[in-house]
Amino acid sequence: MNYCSQCGSAVEQIIPNGDSRLRFVCSRCHHIHYENPRIVAGCIPVYQDQVLLCRRAIEPRYGLWTLPAGFMENGESVEEAAARETREEACAHVRNLQLYTLTSIVHINQVQMLYLAQLEQPEFAVGEETLEVALFREDQIPWDQLAFETIHNALAYYFEDRKSGSYPLRHIRIDRNHSHSD
Amino acid sequence: MNYCSQCGSAVEQIIPNGDSRLRFVCSRCHHIHYENPRIVAGCIPVYQDQVLLCRRAIEPRYGLWTLPAGFMENGESVEEAAARETREEACAHVRNLQLYTLTSIVHINQVQMLYLAQLEQPEFAVGEETLEVALFREDQIPWDQLAFETIHNALAYYFEDRKSGSYPLRHIRIDRNHSHSD
Repeated sequence: MNYCSQCGSAVEQIIPNGDSRLRFVCSRCHHIHYENPRIVAGCIPVYQDQVLLCRRAIEPRYGLWTLPAGFMENGESVEEAAARETREEACAHVRNLQLYTLTSIVHINQVQMLYLAQLEQPEFAVGEETLEVALFREDQIPWDQLAFETIHNALAYYFEDRKSGSYPLRHIRIDRNHSHSD
Repeated sequence: MNYCSQCGSAVEQIIPNGDSRLRFVCSRCHHIHYENPRIVAGCIPVYQDQVLLCRRAIEPRYGLWTLPAGFMENGESVEEAAARETREEACAHVRNLQLYTLTSIVHINQVQMLYLAQLEQPEFAVGEETLEVALFREDQIPWDQLAFETIHNALAYYFEDRKSGSYPLRHIRIDRNHSHSD
């Protein structure tokens, strides 16, 4: 950040009064520009014994498989964002959404929330950001071609929990800057 | 938003290629400035049969009672944010955090996540943004002096669930623009 989005003047990094962190503050109008983590919402769409995956048509991780997910927008709930991303990326409709993984990805300032969801029908198609969409049984999951660690985690937890039929919310913290992950 | 934070030129609202929403886009460097919901994290600190509340020393809702909560910062997990806010606002230390309410406050683009948490000791003090901190039994809660609807909801759910000892995650959607809340 170089300039104030309100008045166009240069910003400087200072600790405002009553604060304890460096913020970008406008040198002229003194507006404080806070920066906060963004939410990524998505689904694990399940149909019978299969999970719906999308092959990415965009960077990063072009060509690798992922769950439908993307940045939550203003003016929607987290659950609505998860269902919308599933419609946009896989042209698929889901119901009975249940929050399943909550991952703080500390080094990139993201919070990812993935919902277990029922695919209403085995109907889907590629969206604009997707090369291919398909249903996978557990023994068909392309484990070595998954786009992200968080997707790997969610699928591994899902198939583990499916044995017992109990799907507790999973809290995950990833911080590559500190080689710390739990 | 009036100016590009990257190059200082004027921004305009257009729908970028491949997008479906109006975004602020720089007229010169073409940087797209996305705006996304922010996360508010906090705790319901419990000590024996009491809950810790803070009386606000800041606007909005100066002088009213709330749970310790505030905006999640970059570089931390949601749970760490909830514990940090409890330290900052009530000088109190909590453990055994369990996500309890997840509220999408659609009309102000916030997602509030409140954790049930154990107060380690009945030790607390006012932080910079707090006039007063105190423990309340259920029959002492100042229901008509609570700062926010989300705080009212969380406390009502907590005392309801305490009867059974089971605290399922509560999903709440508030949208004052559409008089719709469930």
